[in-house]
Amino acid sequence: MKKVLVTGASGFIGRQSLTPLVRRGFEVHAVTTQSQLDESLTGLDVTWHQFDLLEAGTPAVMIQQIQPSHLLHFGWYAEPGKYLESAENMRWVAATLAMLQAFKASEGERFVSAGTCFEYDGAYGFCREDLTPKAPTSLYGTCKDATRAILATYADTEALSLAWGRIFFLYGPYEHPNRLVSSIIRSLLSGQSAKSSAGTQIRDFMHVSDVAEGFVHLLESDVRGSVNICSGQATTIADVARTIAKQLKAEGLLELGALPMRANEPPLLIGDVQRLTNEVGFEPRYNLETGIAAAIDWWRKA
Amino acid sequence: MKKVLVTGASGFIGRQSLTPLVRRGFEVHAVTTQSQLDESLTGLDVTWHQFDLLEAGTPAVMIQQIQPSHLLHFGWYAEPGKYLESAENMRWVAATLAMLQAFKASEGERFVSAGTCFEYDGAYGFCREDLTPKAPTSLYGTCKDATRAILATYADTEALSLAWGRIFFLYGPYEHPNRLVSSIIRSLLSGQSAKSSAGTQIRDFMHVSDVAEGFVHLLESDVRGSVNICSGQATTIADVARTIAKQLKAEGLLELGALPMRANEPPLLIGDVQRLTNEVGFEPRYNLETGIAAAIDWWRKA
Repeated sequence: MKKVLVTGASGFIGRQSLTPLVRRGFEVHAVTTQSQLDESLTGLDVTWHQFDLLEAGTPAVMIQQIQPSHLLHFGWYAEPGKYLESAENMRWVAATLAMLQAFKASEGERFVSAGTCFEYDGAYGFCREDLTPKAPTSLYGTCKDATRAILATYADTEALSLAWGRIFFLYGPYEHPNRLVSSIIRSLLSGQSAKSSAGTQIRDFMHVSDVAEGFVHLLESDVRGSVNICSGQATTIADVARTIAKQLKAEGLLELGALPMRANEPPLLIGDVQRLTNEVGFEPRYNLETGIAAAIDWWRKA
Repeated sequence: MKKVLVTGASGFIGRQSLTPLVRRGFEVHAVTTQSQLDESLTGLDVTWHQFDLLEAGTPAVMIQQIQPSHLLHFGWYAEPGKYLESAENMRWVAATLAMLQAFKASEGERFVSAGTCFEYDGAYGFCREDLTPKAPTSLYGTCKDATRAILATYADTEALSLAWGRIFFLYGPYEHPNRLVSSIIRSLLSGQSAKSSAGTQIRDFMHVSDVAEGFVHLLESDVRGSVNICSGQATTIADVARTIAKQLKAEGLLELGALPMRANEPPLLIGDVQRLTNEVGFEPRYNLETGIAAAIDWWRKA
């Protein structure tokens, strides 16, 4: 039986990967640092393990104990407002390298890890795996890119099957309440105005459950190397905001342009979805309309 | 007083850096994994510490204990024939990141670390810090390049003074006996034939004591970022071999072309020395003739 270990399994993306993995016949071992889990997690047919991967020696102990055939690595530092420049990123580099070595030593078969669109050179904006140069500027992007480079070279050396899914912009259940989509939904749901920048930046947004499903498909495939986990649908941030306001019939509460644009925001940051579509064979379930509707629905009940 | 911590201090380059550091007024703390040191090391005016930086937690303990203002990081896995693809490289990435964070936390001032010409894209051959793309192929080169990228981004974020010296090809006292220059000298000194490839590859060779002095100058400067630690003198491997044979009057024992060239050897791998010369202000003491003479002299007495 295929036995998958999921790190960051109680996190924003990780938690959405568990049911799809169970459905596809994996024996699922979910790793988290949290001692208390909400019902939506404890009710699943998965085995929970509590490990802090940043503790020295823990990645190896975890792998030796669980002996997974597959590994889906979402665990990383992701605190909004802090994650881009935090030194925690360096600790995750070390933890990831240690985990990969232990995985290889225990004869694991397939390792899939989460990367980011911030590995790409933002001056291009259009991100295709084999074309767009990598030139991260944040410590987060640099650490992800460096980890990817080391993992890929090590996997080649050791003939290990490895893929790296680059995440773009996402939204959906359990998103941090202060992030873009959540905060607009929450404001408008409570009848308050939602202020944002003009939102002219063009981005690739994907519903988090599609992101997680994309990773599960990638894990089951034998595609190696880097793959954008994105929708391939370009949209402005303003359009995302307007879609929310329209569905909530609260256009009057949306104040686009009330806040300044952040410095150094690249105007364009979108992914080419061909590898994910054609090689991995994945099609997302949601488009922007239906994805936003699902997110609103979740926040109504939250 | 300036207090420098040197890692890999009993190694090939590290040991040559100690006397120059003492001469320049540093309080020198030398770190090694070895419990037994030869007289040439124990006789120096430095404080020795035994630490294994690959042990989890040790980099931080070492920094907290010694509290250096300067750090010169030579420690890395360097076993000839194995170092290019060994997983040990990944452990050194983690150790280096942990050490830098501890150094920052203890308010260290200047961090200089050893990189390699194998970070550059070998298809170019001519390596200039600001021009030549980075495209390492070995796990060693990938891990060094990844470490450099993370260190540089972290140093920018934290306003830490950091430089990265890229080492090219070197020779001299205490070189591993099986490496190119040592093995030819040893064979010819003992009256045996020395077989090598045709040696048409063009390289940048530097005497190890000049490499170490170059690093000491870099440490004392305020130059940041990557700097080639090289001679700027292009030479073929055949010329290096012929220089040795000529000085030993043993041309007849030299069999150039007796061995095949290694696969994937780039024809050209030389460094631009302008940053080291003009910004760091360093001039090497040896040229190829005098450097080889000094190396022969050392092997005669060894």
